Amino acid sequence: MKAFMDKDFLLNGESAKKLYHEFAKNMPICDYHCHLSPEEIYENKEPSDISQLWLSGDHYKWRAMRSAGIEEKYCTGDASPKDKFRAFAKTLQYCIGNPLYHWAHLELQRYFGIETPLSEKTADEIYEKANQAIKNGDFRPQSLIEKSNVKYVCTTDDPIDDLKYHKLLKEKNLSFEVLPSFRPDKALNINLDGFGDYISELSKASGIAINTVADVCRALEVRAEYFNSAGCKVSDQAFDYVPFEVSSEAELEEIFEKGLEGKYLTQSETDKYRTAVMLSLGKKYSELGWVMEIHIGAMRNNNSRQFISLGADTGYDSVGDCEIAKPLSRFLDSLDYMGFLPKTILFNLNDKDNTVLATMLGNFQSAEAESKIQFGPAWWFLDTMDGMTAQMKSLANLGVLGKFVGMETDSRSFTSYARHEYFRRIMCRLIGEWLDEGMVSYDEEIIKEIIEGICFNNAVKYFGFK
Amino acid sequence: MKAFMDKDFLLNGESAKKLYHEFAKNMPICDYHCHLSPEEIYENKEPSDISQLWLSGDHYKWRAMRSAGIEEKYCTGDASPKDKFRAFAKTLQYCIGNPLYHWAHLELQRYFGIETPLSEKTADEIYEKANQAIKNGDFRPQSLIEKSNVKYVCTTDDPIDDLKYHKLLKEKNLSFEVLPSFRPDKALNINLDGFGDYISELSKASGIAINTVADVCRALEVRAEYFNSAGCKVSDQAFDYVPFEVSSEAELEEIFEKGLEGKYLTQSETDKYRTAVMLSLGKKYSELGWVMEIHIGAMRNNNSRQFISLGADTGYDSVGDCEIAKPLSRFLDSLDYMGFLPKTILFNLNDKDNTVLATMLGNFQSAEAESKIQFGPAWWFLDTMDGMTAQMKSLANLGVLGKFVGMETDSRSFTSYARHEYFRRIMCRLIGEWLDEGMVSYDEEIIKEIIEGICFNNAVKYFGFK
Amino acid sequence: MKAFMDKDFLLNGESAKKLYHEFAKNMPICDYHCHLSPEEIYENKEPSDISQLWLSGDHYKWRAMRSAGIEEKYCTGDASPKDKFRAFAKTLQYCIGNPLYHWAHLELQRYFGIETPLSEKTADEIYEKANQAIKNGDFRPQSLIEKSNVKYVCTTDDPIDDLKYHKLLKEKNLSFEVLPSFRPDKALNINLDGFGDYISELSKASGIAINTVADVCRALEVRAEYFNSAGCKVSDQAFDYVPFEVSSEAELEEIFEKGLEGKYLTQSETDKYRTAVMLSLGKKYSELGWVMEIHIGAMRNNNSRQFISLGADTGYDSVGDCEIAKPLSRFLDSLDYMGFLPKTILFNLNDKDNTVLATMLGNFQSAEAESKIQFGPAWWFLDTMDGMTAQMKSLANLGVLGKFVGMETDSRSFTSYARHEYFRRIMCRLIGEWLDEGMVSYDEEIIKEIIEGICFNNAVKYFGFK
Repeated sequence: MKAFMDKDFLLNGESAKKLYHEFAKNMPICDYHCHLSPEEIYENKEPSDISQLWLSGDHYKWRAMRSAGIEEKYCTGDASPKDKFRAFAKTLQYCIGNPLYHWAHLELQRYFGIETPLSEKTADEIYEKANQAIKNGDFRPQSLIEKSNVKYVCTTDDPIDDLKYHKLLKEKNLSFEVLPSFRPDKALNINLDGFGDYISELSKASGIAINTVADVCRALEVRAEYFNSAGCKVSDQAFDYVPFEVSSEAELEEIFEKGLEGKYLTQSETDKYRTAVMLSLGKKYSELGWVMEIHIGAMRNNNSRQFISLGADTGYDSVGDCEIAKPLSRFLDSLDYMGFLPKTILFNLNDKDNTVLATMLGNFQSAEAESKIQFGPAWWFLDTMDGMTAQMKSLANLGVLGKFVGMETDSRSFTSYARHEYFRRIMCRLIGEWLDEGMVSYDEEIIKEIIEGICFNNAVKYFGFK
Repeated sequence: MKAFMDKDFLLNGESAKKLYHEFAKNMPICDYHCHLSPEEIYENKEPSDISQLWLSGDHYKWRAMRSAGIEEKYCTGDASPKDKFRAFAKTLQYCIGNPLYHWAHLELQRYFGIETPLSEKTADEIYEKANQAIKNGDFRPQSLIEKSNVKYVCTTDDPIDDLKYHKLLKEKNLSFEVLPSFRPDKALNINLDGFGDYISELSKASGIAINTVADVCRALEVRAEYFNSAGCKVSDQAFDYVPFEVSSEAELEEIFEKGLEGKYLTQSETDKYRTAVMLSLGKKYSELGWVMEIHIGAMRNNNSRQFISLGADTGYDSVGDCEIAKPLSRFLDSLDYMGFLPKTILFNLNDKDNTVLATMLGNFQSAEAESKIQFGPAWWFLDTMDGMTAQMKSLANLGVLGKFVGMETDSRSFTSYARHEYFRRIMCRLIGEWLDEGMVSYDEEIIKEIIEGICFNNAVKYFGFK
Repeated sequence: MKAFMDKDFLLNGESAKKLYHEFAKNMPICDYHCHLSPEEIYENKEPSDISQLWLSGDHYKWRAMRSAGIEEKYCTGDASPKDKFRAFAKTLQYCIGNPLYHWAHLELQRYFGIETPLSEKTADEIYEKANQAIKNGDFRPQSLIEKSNVKYVCTTDDPIDDLKYHKLLKEKNLSFEVLPSFRPDKALNINLDGFGDYISELSKASGIAINTVADVCRALEVRAEYFNSAGCKVSDQAFDYVPFEVSSEAELEEIFEKGLEGKYLTQSETDKYRTAVMLSLGKKYSELGWVMEIHIGAMRNNNSRQFISLGADTGYDSVGDCEIAKPLSRFLDSLDYMGFLPKTILFNLNDKDNTVLATMLGNFQSAEAESKIQFGPAWWFLDTMDGMTAQMKSLANLGVLGKFVGMETDSRSFTSYARHEYFRRIMCRLIGEWLDEGMVSYDEEIIKEIIEGICFNNAVKYFGFK
């Protein structure tokens, strides 16, 4: 029995160890998609205790706790920090095989210097030790980011955001850059409550009077220019499936009218509106040289009772299973045909779609960039050892693994950079197995370039960060 | 080359061996879903020979034989028992990698004491030895169940069943309990022939005059109460996909009328009827504290020629590929929102749905039970080493494996308890690999609790058997 | 670290080595589906250089190159052969984990005697060596086929083809047979441009005046008879999903009229026409004792810009994700019910459909042939180590692996027979792992029969080649 999560954790052969320790381990991090708060990074406050750091906003952990039969008061409720930590520790011991189990232990080791496995038995001891470490050390956001060797952080921001904290952070000349990402979901969600109000705010933020869909597009363009001037290089949008349904301008305006008035829209109407706006946005991204990230397949807010009580992003989302191939192909083809297809990263949340996405890439590659269309790393529910391995195997089988832009955290927590280490160990394990079996030729120069590329260099080049 | 299927079969490391031999092997069995006949258990007749035991009702074996080009007379036809056995033996030698290959050899070893691999060459020798074992030993159903260390058997019963044999069995005070399960499929299949007749029988059995959908629901409630008084704790329903489409009462009654008259119903009409009845049933199950099992994804009776000749459950079913995420979410949410979501086990027959189900669970967990919503074990066509491993990995990645209720046989055969052994070896192999690699911390108390829990204890607690 | 791609490449245990070297390696090849040109085989011209051999028509390689950011002039454009080769070599070094990486090195080893791994650094050296080998050796198509130990080559031909080259090749009495396959896609693609013209050509080729759908069917039957007289034993059709929608004759003729006139057809109309023609074709195939191959799931010509510039089959296809289970079941059942279901091989391009297909087989098996309904080997985008392993595991779990007809190349290149070696190594690896673990009984006679069967004998028997 190998020691529990020691320095060779997940590195199951000589090649894996070499690749990780010699090439991967010390590469910086380019976290090109996350949900960290620029305000919190700027404010740079010390957390009060490990419960605040770990349990105050992490819906992954809440879900696990609820699945173990833990009462809500220990998740989002008013139990004491210590009791919440105990409840989490008790849950974690049953979570063998879950990435939370590995993430938690990696974070204890790397940030707190604690090697003891966490369980109901050790909860109190670890709670004290961790809080002592927080008290004696520096667990402020900027320090954690620096200590994690992060060079680029791309947050997720609404087009109407004034990017105040990004600007303030820039002035501080930190050892890492905090850049905004343009996420226009609210301008696309014509079918949801609050669309009309959002359009008013967008109008205000952009200085464009919005009466038509074309006005929406123009307003978003104005905001994209603004984001661009603040260093933005990335847009991001989330869909069940990528919509593609064309319509006449007259029909479009009718749909928009109904959306503003909060009237019921059919799925086809929603798709038509979104198609029009997305085609316009894609063109703008292309002009700006941005990367268009598309996250496909989340089914959100499934629990109405808890949505009313706790709101969104509280652990009640899951994975959808729509057909995605045809409309996605048509959407990308339309932009490509017009000459306006930006660099694009496709992320899927349902692993049944791995083959569809990994082959879709190949339809729209070009010499504009190495792997211009990228298969995004395994994300959210797929951000597991099995999910990451499957994504990398799909990409390797069907595309060019050596040009992969690699991992992002997609996280809301400042200690979650351990997930980059997790990803790198798994990546080195996979490539190491191929080397050990004689399935890949060991040319050190080439292999080093590939490993360092997937860790950091490919992303920096692809996004144009320097 | 390791010896063929010896005591360490499938146990590929030191941890796997320890987990299986020390913790898993001697745990009793809680077979919470099967298709054994309570009448046959009660009658307790000795089988005439191994062909009767193995080949008289097992559509898994018939399918394999047909796939090897064997004529129908050796499957369901009138060939002699010995010739049928020979045909099966000849088939089996080509079935490497098929669970039948392992099940057959496990059953030969455990129940017959025969270690010789079965093939065309050894068929006659094994046929004689096995029949000798039957003659000299005790192969009656009750003995086989006892010998297999089974404590709970949940059969599958129609709501109109009088449960006579369950009652008679209860009086016998056996070392195991035989409990009914409530399977209202016929009351839900408004689109199939015989629906009207079934409703008449349901009316008779319940004493409720049935004129409306509400009456159907009331009649089913009466029968559920009756089942409950006989110790039932489980309901079970089978769907291509879980329907969810709401409708007005007036529309519902029109649909019901048409169904009674055997008129053609659209899929949407069938869905509306089923939604109404399932919401009512879910509420009742919740009130009774039952578990609602939902088996999703079978496509039945694909071969019309053989359906006419042999009827249902004769080996002509396969796996469907409908979209399931959205309506399933809406159905569970509706019950949850009303406060009536019972404990639920979701089973999928298409492994492409693993991620959808394993994440759906998390939307509706609560402190009512540990893993109140369960991901059912790999079932029927997925009841293979690969299928079980994939299901457990999905559950581990996305939920809490330590609270899993584990295996059931879903079987029609009294020697099929060997499938529990198969499952346990595979489970210990998986967890053993994690331990050997240092991916899970070896705390003996915790690991033992998890293994014993998945083998037996979790199910007993979850179903409330004691 | 095992040596790179040595004689035990992919053979990871003692059993795998034995199975491959003693049983699999020297079996002949039955390539029952490919896209080789009978004209090129007949003309038997020496290639000018390795770029012509490798890069002049291989859209797999072009896709990889485009994915690495290589300009189009090095793919389909007018760069020099040497520069094209360099661009491919530079691409290949990043393609670790891609079957191209293994295919290219296998071909270099087997046909050129070159053991040096191909990369940017070694490109020039290998280019010279390979061209020297071509100059000094015999790289004409017939020699390559013979050297590869191929006994049967089934090309892919349009029903209107006169099969001139097949006849000429037959007269040459080569050591292998080149047989046509009947691929009536153009007669089924009523929704595509050029349908009317094609029907005119079909009319001419068959001597049948075509005014109705029944005439189309009759004309195809005449051509099938013609193909049959030329030794054809196989038909092949490609679909997104297998259509099944019945219609009245009157409706059918209306649809046909519209198709001839090039008018827009709905998906339902296209499906109705295809259903009618496919049912008629299936019956004919059954009468002729042919095998019906159905390739399901390609989504073709996704890039309009490049389709206009380069045409079809240039590397812009990908994998679709339609639901396939229900209509496929209905189609096969209709033929079976009428007594006209031919031997059938089902191929899927989306691995999410593995379980659907591998269980669909079992619904329609019969004693007419061993595994009358076959699960086709992993194909095109799935023709990878992972794809082949998954297909064989699915088939083993759900059918009878020992009766599998095994590999075909589906290729356009004369050195692609290395893919049979690749398949055989992977197959021996899988079965070898089972043997080494004691999961399969080692009866040499049985195991040898299974391995040789999957390599060659099963296909020869199944297709009736001798």
